[in-house]
Amino acid sequence: MTAVRVGIVGLGRMGRLHATNIAERVHALEVVAASDPAETAAAAARDLGITFVSDWRELVARDDLDAVLVCSPADHHAEQIVAAAAAGKHAFCEKPLDRTLAGIEPVLAAVGAAGTVLQVGFNRRADRNFATLRERLAAGELDAPWLLKITSRDPHPQPKEYVVESGGLFLDMAIHDFDLARFLLGDVVSVSAAGGALVDPELAELGDVDTAITTLAFASGALGVIDNCRRASYGYDQRVEVHGRRGMLAAENELSSTVQLADETGFHRPPLPEFFLDRYGDAYARELEVFAAAVAGDAAPLADGVDGQQAVAVAVAARRSLAEGRTVSLREVLT
Amino acid sequence: MTAVRVGIVGLGRMGRLHATNIAERVHALEVVAASDPAETAAAAARDLGITFVSDWRELVARDDLDAVLVCSPADHHAEQIVAAAAAGKHAFCEKPLDRTLAGIEPVLAAVGAAGTVLQVGFNRRADRNFATLRERLAAGELDAPWLLKITSRDPHPQPKEYVVESGGLFLDMAIHDFDLARFLLGDVVSVSAAGGALVDPELAELGDVDTAITTLAFASGALGVIDNCRRASYGYDQRVEVHGRRGMLAAENELSSTVQLADETGFHRPPLPEFFLDRYGDAYARELEVFAAAVAGDAAPLADGVDGQQAVAVAVAARRSLAEGRTVSLREVLT
Amino acid sequence: MTAVRVGIVGLGRMGRLHATNIAERVHALEVVAASDPAETAAAAARDLGITFVSDWRELVARDDLDAVLVCSPADHHAEQIVAAAAAGKHAFCEKPLDRTLAGIEPVLAAVGAAGTVLQVGFNRRADRNFATLRERLAAGELDAPWLLKITSRDPHPQPKEYVVESGGLFLDMAIHDFDLARFLLGDVVSVSAAGGALVDPELAELGDVDTAITTLAFASGALGVIDNCRRASYGYDQRVEVHGRRGMLAAENELSSTVQLADETGFHRPPLPEFFLDRYGDAYARELEVFAAAVAGDAAPLADGVDGQQAVAVAVAARRSLAEGRTVSLREVLT
Amino acid sequence: MTAVRVGIVGLGRMGRLHATNIAERVHALEVVAASDPAETAAAAARDLGITFVSDWRELVARDDLDAVLVCSPADHHAEQIVAAAAAGKHAFCEKPLDRTLAGIEPVLAAVGAAGTVLQVGFNRRADRNFATLRERLAAGELDAPWLLKITSRDPHPQPKEYVVESGGLFLDMAIHDFDLARFLLGDVVSVSAAGGALVDPELAELGDVDTAITTLAFASGALGVIDNCRRASYGYDQRVEVHGRRGMLAAENELSSTVQLADETGFHRPPLPEFFLDRYGDAYARELEVFAAAVAGDAAPLADGVDGQQAVAVAVAARRSLAEGRTVSLREVLT
Repeated sequence: MTAVRVGIVGLGRMGRLHATNIAERVHALEVVAASDPAETAAAAARDLGITFVSDWRELVARDDLDAVLVCSPADHHAEQIVAAAAAGKHAFCEKPLDRTLAGIEPVLAAVGAAGTVLQVGFNRRADRNFATLRERLAAGELDAPWLLKITSRDPHPQPKEYVVESGGLFLDMAIHDFDLARFLLGDVVSVSAAGGALVDPELAELGDVDTAITTLAFASGALGVIDNCRRASYGYDQRVEVHGRRGMLAAENELSSTVQLADETGFHRPPLPEFFLDRYGDAYARELEVFAAAVAGDAAPLADGVDGQQAVAVAVAARRSLAEGRTVSLREVLT
Repeated sequence: MTAVRVGIVGLGRMGRLHATNIAERVHALEVVAASDPAETAAAAARDLGITFVSDWRELVARDDLDAVLVCSPADHHAEQIVAAAAAGKHAFCEKPLDRTLAGIEPVLAAVGAAGTVLQVGFNRRADRNFATLRERLAAGELDAPWLLKITSRDPHPQPKEYVVESGGLFLDMAIHDFDLARFLLGDVVSVSAAGGALVDPELAELGDVDTAITTLAFASGALGVIDNCRRASYGYDQRVEVHGRRGMLAAENELSSTVQLADETGFHRPPLPEFFLDRYGDAYARELEVFAAAVAGDAAPLADGVDGQQAVAVAVAARRSLAEGRTVSLREVLT
Repeated sequence: MTAVRVGIVGLGRMGRLHATNIAERVHALEVVAASDPAETAAAAARDLGITFVSDWRELVARDDLDAVLVCSPADHHAEQIVAAAAAGKHAFCEKPLDRTLAGIEPVLAAVGAAGTVLQVGFNRRADRNFATLRERLAAGELDAPWLLKITSRDPHPQPKEYVVESGGLFLDMAIHDFDLARFLLGDVVSVSAAGGALVDPELAELGDVDTAITTLAFASGALGVIDNCRRASYGYDQRVEVHGRRGMLAAENELSSTVQLADETGFHRPPLPEFFLDRYGDAYARELEVFAAAVAGDAAPLADGVDGQQAVAVAVAARRSLAEGRTVSLREVLT
Repeated sequence: MTAVRVGIVGLGRMGRLHATNIAERVHALEVVAASDPAETAAAAARDLGITFVSDWRELVARDDLDAVLVCSPADHHAEQIVAAAAAGKHAFCEKPLDRTLAGIEPVLAAVGAAGTVLQVGFNRRADRNFATLRERLAAGELDAPWLLKITSRDPHPQPKEYVVESGGLFLDMAIHDFDLARFLLGDVVSVSAAGGALVDPELAELGDVDTAITTLAFASGALGVIDNCRRASYGYDQRVEVHGRRGMLAAENELSSTVQLADETGFHRPPLPEFFLDRYGDAYARELEVFAAAVAGDAAPLADGVDGQQAVAVAVAARRSLAEGRTVSLREVLT
């Protein structure tokens, strides 16, 4: 099989992560070139052994690429995917597709017109535990699912500037959980959110929260609840429970080691992995393998453009619910 | 120490449970007599070796009683406590004090005027795990608590008639969790609820739900979320997590046995206890010991009249939130 | 049902424990009187509300007793059971029946001749987990058992004087495990032991060990291994695994609370129960209920005289194996 | 850093595993060529893109190699390492160095004389959990270790022919545990073993066992016990406990997924990984990284020639102990 030739738009943390994964583990892709407006990125590209251009438009226009990995800041995603589609290039895009629902519409239109593949970087779909959980739900192990519970707590808060620029907790962090919820239980019809700036009260002045409870109603009639927090002292806490007629399916945390100590003060296990790469390292590689298969026509994208749109819609509805103290239907925000 | 002499109003399931516990385990109380309008209860009283009267007013008037245990249907509680207080008798009352907030006001007034002890039967406060959790929170182990999560799922639904008469899921079942939330994190200021009749769709016609997510805002600024369901195939699921600045304190389920089987299909543990007495048997005895100590002036009631009122207020607010699709403040329902 | 009337020989820790259990929980027995040579025991008897005599022979001779509970020092057990049998009294005896196999023979003969019930106080047979494990083995869940593993570690060493007088680790402590091994997998045919005075090296001078590995061969062909230690900082560690053709059945430790803390140093659970009564409290009551049923002819003794003899035989063989550095067959020590 | 150039002697399962790991993950090594007497191995070499020779002597003589990985049948190991040392080549050798202690002596002599690196393939030393456990022991977390317990049970028996040829359970399978015991608690001074052919009684006719309990005495005075079995229906069971003055350090099994199901029959987790590569995949790569570092002079070999000799000595002593029903000291077998 010939490897899919990709260009990476943006050599920040995610761009470099994907480049490294492709070099070491994902043999179905090959990185040809990368673009980044920052001068410092040229050195990173050199270390990775790939051609560097500073202008993403130049990258997208190259003849020797089949696809682009869009790893730039979120406010450029839409424009870049549209340009890639116009150039007949497939696109893998980090979340979110755009911070506004209005900005996503032209993306879906352009990709639809070009017939190119678009996959959104919802890497948790590729986690071994969540993927297993979905398979077992699909196999009917719970009969009808009634309730989804997601615990999603970050070890450390992001810098305050990032949080504000990124669209806040719902659009930046919880969006992964909104997509995971849809991955497991299907479409969401309404959202209700409560939250507070408990970790860092100054965040309230910037109009954001760092702790939130989001309740979802699914099209199936099932309910969902997600608890998010920007800070968990004991590590990256990522758990899922689904309850239904036949019982419960749960995905518990991955451990950083199975070693425990028992002493006169009790039984002690180490904290959870702190870094998202420790928790989801394999999932980042696997999502690219699925993308390669999707480009080859052998698989559906792990999360497509509509998935990207719907997750943003849930985030927008959650933000509005929090502001207005009422349940907000997705229909309100999608039209 | 002389035992506190009690009369039991109502010899249904709870009345008989308390009578048995007092006979076998709670030596600080002594059951003198019991009342019940049902003829069949006379035989139960005889088996328990206690005097039986059919009229509760006659029981409350007796000179040889220090206190009454009010175990009658909920719509009689208020009247009976008021009468007991007027007769100078202390009262232990099963939840709820009344199904309406208006009905609770005269109870608080009468008990206040008489200076008698009133304890509400929120037995979970006496559970070894939840009591430990509260002590450790009070000791500052988490520094500031940010989030409370309660999982509270019954093994089997109650009969439909009971559910309707009892005031529905929030007033009958979740009220225990609302009190537990207050026990752990203090006063609640607003409530938002979502729910559905997922276990038994016919319940929707009766205006109730069997599955619910209730989000709480505490006066402290912390958030809470409770998931309730009338049905859990794997047993009585009762868990609590509190998250805060320093980390998490969690109380997990009690096991029915520590035996597990590993075979070619995996690792298998038995279901959780099915019956509330298996889960909370010790707590039912301990709450009576605290009541005896409160009557003796050696302790505060485990849950007093205001606790009983506040839990009903949260339930009423939750019901209204569910109906109106918006966050409801306790102030709205309490005035 | 009329309660079985018992006299307690010896009001030390175990005698008082049984007296209290009978008063509070075991309604099938009734304590009539107790004997103890110590003057201080008279006050204990008074507190318990039972008749006191200083001479055990006087107790055994009483007409108003159906049975005796032998809770005296081990070197009196045999003589007292023989006397009880001669007086037509059933006997419950704390372990060991005697510290020598020669001393046990007359006991079995006397009880056999009198046709009285003899039950040995191997309380672990009444533990809910071990009893469940045995039932599931009997139900064939593992098909053929191949290997039994017992972990049995005490929280704190006994006083050195006691250890020596008691016959040492194998006869005093491991004897419970030897009986548990027989309870689960049947008769033992040979024993091999290794050990050391690791907790307290001075013990070596007294000819004892405080840490031991004992390997058993069962008549069925299965193997067993027990690890004992006089000291476990994290509490009373009592676990069992049985492996067989179909897999493993394991009984894990009982917890002292289900509460755990997660903080930046990891996940922390409390130590195990420290006191044998916290771990086996229910089992001590249940073994007496079985004894009452055995006296009534409704059940077999939980552990009979032959069980008592065999456990001592394994202990004697273990001691010899340790001294001689070789596998010792039970046949060698039993004849 | 220039990669260490290696040749692989033997392209069976282990040879191919190492070749693949080097190609994909271990960039500090580079495979130049391989030898194998089987014609079919030539194709395997071609697939791996490496030069193939049929005669191992030819391989060892090549100028373009720094080291050899000895992955041939065990009866050739010694001769091949000696030849490699004579040619100035470092050697990584799969266990055992030889099936006899006499056969190992010339290996140690040759390597000592040549000053080359010799590392034995005791991959468990590179497992993240066991390595962590050793570090924490070294840091004094238990103060004095008293007891080591290893559970080591294979999912499925090897073919009977292999078992006999390989030297039996102690030399083929338990040798990994003997080395792990030394890795954690240091030198062993005596051994006592019990065993049976319980999985497959026919094995007894071939003079081997498939289930064994091996008790170790360490030079430090600590005790050890290992339970081995050729068959565990629930997967590859690999656990370690170390007990000492301050408590216990335990390494539990790695899970194949964190997903569990709760239904009316209880709580169900998947079986353990079945294949040794699922359990120790990372460890196989890491042991080669350490070998590369040892060749570069930057690290000690993970397990050296003396470690390889000592593990065989424990296995030989265990076999003798089983045959003779007595404790065997290592001194007996090493001289």
